[in-house]
Amino acid sequence: MEQENVPPRSAALGRIQLAHERREFLRRTLVLGGATVATAATVRAGAQNLSRNLPPNVPEWQTTLGAPILEHPYGLPSRYEANVRRRESPGLTRTPQSSVSFTPLQNLFGIITPSSLHFERHHGGMPEVDPHQHRLMIHGMVANPRIFTVDDVMRFPSVSRIHFIECGANTGMEWGNVAVPTVQYTHGMIACSEWTGVLLSTLLDECGYDRRRARFVLAEGADAASLTRSVPIEMALDDTMVVYAQNGEMLRPEQGYPLRLVVPGVQGVSSVKWLRRIKVGDAPWNTREESLHYVDLMPDGSQRQYTWIQEAKSVITSPSGGEVILDRGYHEITGLAWTGRGHVRRVDVSTDGGRNWRTAVLQEPILPKALTRFRLDWDWEGGPALLQSRVIDETGYVQPTYRQLREVRGTRSIYHNNAIQTWRVGASGEVSNVQVAS
Amino acid sequence: MEQENVPPRSAALGRIQLAHERREFLRRTLVLGGATVATAATVRAGAQNLSRNLPPNVPEWQTTLGAPILEHPYGLPSRYEANVRRRESPGLTRTPQSSVSFTPLQNLFGIITPSSLHFERHHGGMPEVDPHQHRLMIHGMVANPRIFTVDDVMRFPSVSRIHFIECGANTGMEWGNVAVPTVQYTHGMIACSEWTGVLLSTLLDECGYDRRRARFVLAEGADAASLTRSVPIEMALDDTMVVYAQNGEMLRPEQGYPLRLVVPGVQGVSSVKWLRRIKVGDAPWNTREESLHYVDLMPDGSQRQYTWIQEAKSVITSPSGGEVILDRGYHEITGLAWTGRGHVRRVDVSTDGGRNWRTAVLQEPILPKALTRFRLDWDWEGGPALLQSRVIDETGYVQPTYRQLREVRGTRSIYHNNAIQTWRVGASGEVSNVQVAS
Repeated sequence: MEQENVPPRSAALGRIQLAHERREFLRRTLVLGGATVATAATVRAGAQNLSRNLPPNVPEWQTTLGAPILEHPYGLPSRYEANVRRRESPGLTRTPQSSVSFTPLQNLFGIITPSSLHFERHHGGMPEVDPHQHRLMIHGMVANPRIFTVDDVMRFPSVSRIHFIECGANTGMEWGNVAVPTVQYTHGMIACSEWTGVLLSTLLDECGYDRRRARFVLAEGADAASLTRSVPIEMALDDTMVVYAQNGEMLRPEQGYPLRLVVPGVQGVSSVKWLRRIKVGDAPWNTREESLHYVDLMPDGSQRQYTWIQEAKSVITSPSGGEVILDRGYHEITGLAWTGRGHVRRVDVSTDGGRNWRTAVLQEPILPKALTRFRLDWDWEGGPALLQSRVIDETGYVQPTYRQLREVRGTRSIYHNNAIQTWRVGASGEVSNVQVAS
Repeated sequence: MEQENVPPRSAALGRIQLAHERREFLRRTLVLGGATVATAATVRAGAQNLSRNLPPNVPEWQTTLGAPILEHPYGLPSRYEANVRRRESPGLTRTPQSSVSFTPLQNLFGIITPSSLHFERHHGGMPEVDPHQHRLMIHGMVANPRIFTVDDVMRFPSVSRIHFIECGANTGMEWGNVAVPTVQYTHGMIACSEWTGVLLSTLLDECGYDRRRARFVLAEGADAASLTRSVPIEMALDDTMVVYAQNGEMLRPEQGYPLRLVVPGVQGVSSVKWLRRIKVGDAPWNTREESLHYVDLMPDGSQRQYTWIQEAKSVITSPSGGEVILDRGYHEITGLAWTGRGHVRRVDVSTDGGRNWRTAVLQEPILPKALTRFRLDWDWEGGPALLQSRVIDETGYVQPTYRQLREVRGTRSIYHNNAIQTWRVGASGEVSNVQVAS
């Protein structure tokens, strides 16, 4: 092997500053392309070796046997990634059982969200369900009411589909100009998984639902909140799934183990977790979570109820709030776009607050009601910038500005904020969350 | 809420037998469709409630507050899924540092393999790499040799792609008729992830590789084995990636954190983990892992070297070896198919050892060099059955029988066994691993 003694660490590392999220800092610290000092230093450090045709920095871990196989029969991240975690927004909720944790979008890549980092929203805490005891009842306007075990459900013909789930309250804090610092808190109540389960239509057919009278189904969870939501029969018969697996393995406890509903494209509260009951009926039920909560206070003082679809929305995840760009030159702007109405058609990106737009590259595969990642090359010249993304979906719907959204919705809502997000890049590279009306 | 006291657990559960993998047993225990006793019992148990229009079994966990948010900032599976884990085949290797762990394909769903369950193959143990110390050098026939930090690499334009990685030795034990019991051991050295990284072509361009002379690149890992493999320049410039993320988050340590190569469609050993060096040259290097190992002993006594592509292959994962089918009637046969040459075109399934074939349903999306899940309805009448799957890829290549494979390759190989797998279903429902020559 071509190996020799260890040269000193690259001088480039001497330039690294500390930050509350060290990895994020590091990502932006070193340079590329149009860039200068640090890369030159690394190349110089390497060149000493290259002149002798030797590799750089033979590290200690290459000189001794590593850990044995199956040190972790169920694997875990590197300890260097410990800060990539779900986080709670302090003071957002009054009890830790009826609360929210946010997905660290700034640390993620691609379109699949690791199940371990999928945001949480519980209304009565996370129950620990024994799958052998769990039952799903289907009743109401059906010819053959049934009680299924988890194993019964898993024996039906199944499908696997990649879909996002977004809480209706995602980005809710931004309605009031209470700008939270990072994309984890502004947009972190969204995640995207490969779900496997049985189409609800299969189970409704099995039970002989009343095709003439059925208009809605009620879904109830087995948590302490007995969370219940009404779902229109058209959605229930379309792509709604009774899910038992997420990202290849059985559902995680906080995602509804062992059974949950997934209503693709619809606000997350409808995708009832720990699903124990489906009742078929001819009208919505006006449950607590669809009459007192998950309603939109409109400018005329009325409450808009039963807002199902999550409209098209996008956000730049890098660079994003709380990061610092330390070097001029090339950066890849990347982010996520989605729509509850099907496919993302196009994403535009602006670096000047919406005056000029360029079309981003969409990462394949572009799947319906799934996250779509976009990318755009950007050369940062060192001055202030206002980064925005704007999605257009397959229906032609264009993600609104805050001004456009408020014209229709006012300012007193909690839910369904899909306005264009702006990240301000300061002259010295700090990225922060600001609102730009138009 | 419509709730009342808890009725007795369904009589159906009384029929459950114990097995080494309890969940698998449970999956097959209860009945559906054409089926009889157990479902009837559950429906009867439910009917008592239904007559009063009440839900079944209000469980204890629905009556008390659950766990608080962020009990696990980085989530974990339910404790009821503890047996879903990577496993080592006892006696297969001599040391735990140069060994293999297998993916539990029988417990998985969809096409994404959880990173925590991705098979492992190490040659010198798993190093714990400090990402701040790690370097990637590109040298050899390049105009501008460079040493990159991880952060340097992450600043280049990136791509995310879903690809399988299969060890060349997957299914290797079956060459000698040493039938291992479960699909975890027969086929568990394959996994499929969404990988994010930089195309190697981008980095080779950056370094100004010699377009006239370059024929191969050498990739070296920073493990104790300094694992090195030659990759043809055509593959290096096509879809080969320098990967930093897997399934949405940074690579796991056992998958090469913080940088690995992914050479899509090629045997796994080429996807060098803990990647520290790429050298551009004009001939392959004949390293240890491409001259002493990862060669195919042919019937004429010669050694076939540099077998790159993983040819088309498929396997039924459910029902599969070690499971027991306890009830007649409807079952969904499901499994995985893949090809190193692009897309899966079709999968056929036989339940009579290859005499008759039916075409399975392929789950969308069907992605190049990725796992594709197939499904087929099956009514098990209770007699013996021989379950087989056969994939045809986009080139028209048909997965061979053992007889066809051995006519070309003999019986003394270790690597590149892509023959049709047979699971025998006994009259009482036990599923076991058997070989059927034709």
